[in-house]
Amino acid sequence: MHTEDSRHDLRHHGDAEVRDDGSALVDLAVNVRADTPPAWLRERIAESLGSLAAYPDGRAARAAVAARHGLPVERVLLTAGAAEAFVLLARALKVRQPVVVHPQFTEPEAALRDAGHTVDRVLLREADGFRLDPAAVPEEADLVVIGNPTNPTSVLHPADTITRLARHGRTLVVDEAFMDAVPGERETLAGRTDVPGLVVLRSLTKTWGLAGLRIGYVLAAPETIGSLEQAQPLWPVSTPALAATEACMTPRALAEAGHAAHRIAADRAHLVAGLSAFADRGVSVAGPAEGSFVLVRMPGAAGVRRRLRELGYAVRRGDTFPGLGEEWVRVAVRDRGTVNGFLSALSVALP
Amino acid sequence: MHTEDSRHDLRHHGDAEVRDDGSALVDLAVNVRADTPPAWLRERIAESLGSLAAYPDGRAARAAVAARHGLPVERVLLTAGAAEAFVLLARALKVRQPVVVHPQFTEPEAALRDAGHTVDRVLLREADGFRLDPAAVPEEADLVVIGNPTNPTSVLHPADTITRLARHGRTLVVDEAFMDAVPGERETLAGRTDVPGLVVLRSLTKTWGLAGLRIGYVLAAPETIGSLEQAQPLWPVSTPALAATEACMTPRALAEAGHAAHRIAADRAHLVAGLSAFADRGVSVAGPAEGSFVLVRMPGAAGVRRRLRELGYAVRRGDTFPGLGEEWVRVAVRDRGTVNGFLSALSVALP
Repeated sequence: MHTEDSRHDLRHHGDAEVRDDGSALVDLAVNVRADTPPAWLRERIAESLGSLAAYPDGRAARAAVAARHGLPVERVLLTAGAAEAFVLLARALKVRQPVVVHPQFTEPEAALRDAGHTVDRVLLREADGFRLDPAAVPEEADLVVIGNPTNPTSVLHPADTITRLARHGRTLVVDEAFMDAVPGERETLAGRTDVPGLVVLRSLTKTWGLAGLRIGYVLAAPETIGSLEQAQPLWPVSTPALAATEACMTPRALAEAGHAAHRIAADRAHLVAGLSAFADRGVSVAGPAEGSFVLVRMPGAAGVRRRLRELGYAVRRGDTFPGLGEEWVRVAVRDRGTVNGFLSALSVALP
Repeated sequence: MHTEDSRHDLRHHGDAEVRDDGSALVDLAVNVRADTPPAWLRERIAESLGSLAAYPDGRAARAAVAARHGLPVERVLLTAGAAEAFVLLARALKVRQPVVVHPQFTEPEAALRDAGHTVDRVLLREADGFRLDPAAVPEEADLVVIGNPTNPTSVLHPADTITRLARHGRTLVVDEAFMDAVPGERETLAGRTDVPGLVVLRSLTKTWGLAGLRIGYVLAAPETIGSLEQAQPLWPVSTPALAATEACMTPRALAEAGHAAHRIAADRAHLVAGLSAFADRGVSVAGPAEGSFVLVRMPGAAGVRRRLRELGYAVRRGDTFPGLGEEWVRVAVRDRGTVNGFLSALSVALP
């Protein structure tokens, strides 16, 4: 469907690892919270089906997002998932020297390339704990893309470190698709208006289980929002997605997301502790992990993944992420019972 | 939200005329079939909400569309409404001299302009019944956009006339968003593979009342589909929209659409007959009308529209369409009872 990078398949995503024959597998490959969307949210979405004959009117959802982040609506753009936001950024902004900080989600670079750009990479290193050194980003870069917390490393960069990348004349894109999985959303830049060129991307996909609905949003200066909006198709976000957005901005929903973030942190600690028991068999976890997934290094990862599939578990290959090799896999955080089953399988699957 | 053309507001659409204070009006402004989507279709869409946590997988819907038109899947692209298709065409194809045949739906030209193109217009004339003269299109045009049946004129161009616009080295875009409202879909070019550069756009919005869901599709040569797909965001069509697409391609759904087309034709005849009774007050209908709407010329149309609103009826202004002036309005075909009420109101509203 999409062209492939010669070295890394930038268009490989976790969903491909649980499709088709993978549908019977326990899914630790896709970074969407289990048992989502919750019933109350499904009901709100179902209610919206009564007005499908009308063209979508995004004003109320946009206002709800703005209010949630304490911003005026001119600083908010709703998009058909973060994926659309990457395409809009790549096509609508006047950019000459884009830089993507890797390893990270590959869509930003793929979208920039498809738009005809030559993309430079800054590769964070395992030896540095995949932490960002702002000095590593070339001064002449006029677009910098970084994830926080970063997919797939699960590293949470300090907000102050990221803002050191900001420059007048540079667009600084911070993909916060997983920030709501971090308790208190500490280190978020959403709502900040004092950082020049800042563009924050947010998603409702992971926490709320809305991958199928295509909804996300961009927070940026009004003139940037205007440029992106200009490049957007008319009626870009569907009525069910707009209904979901409004529902996810309520205080009740935000409180539920906050509880989920704490549960993820506890479940992640259990997963990491379990993985550390395999240290003598060459397993190590990048970190400290702060997201809803962990990046794991293990010998013979391709064979381990194959054996895990035979045992009923899907994890995501890591080698399609620039900067990572064949020894990496990404594992989604799940509840303790699922993690325990996975760890048992892993003890069999490891060489 | 979007910039305006200096002369015609290319971003004005019928939905703006029934928003806000217009919600209490009888809607003859928006070209979506009344009482849609049907209950069986709403149920199919609601069933899809159970799998929202998974990323959309468009393969089955794409195959269903291909089978419906007797084409291989490589000739089909699903899009988030026809609006996305216009943006993809404007941005992904190498075009130097695009021409749009007006009056017609304004989004194709707006999308081309937003992508940086200079757009030439061919204006069809009332004196010619808004019929297409292929010789009027400049030979050097390498992209030609035409609607069939055309919104807002309701003129159905013969397929043979349109194919005379085809050239090697030219992309010929035929917007068939309203073709399924034409009994037997006569004059459709969907499924044709013998016309060089042909791109057919189709919609499920109008017949099925899915404006809120954002779904449409493109039929074209595999290399053109590939280029458009490359410019598309990942996961462009939502899971509920994919479920709806599959449901609307079944023989049962196609039969239902066929019945609806015949009903529209009968209701349109009733509307046109009623309007012709006002000929002595300066009212005339463009035509012969073949779509689910009619274009009506009347003296003092702006005042008539205002008085109609006071009487509870919304019709769409015609003056935002290039080639039309202030004396035009577009009226959606509705059932006889609604049409009779509208005609009564019109008799009061006309000067």
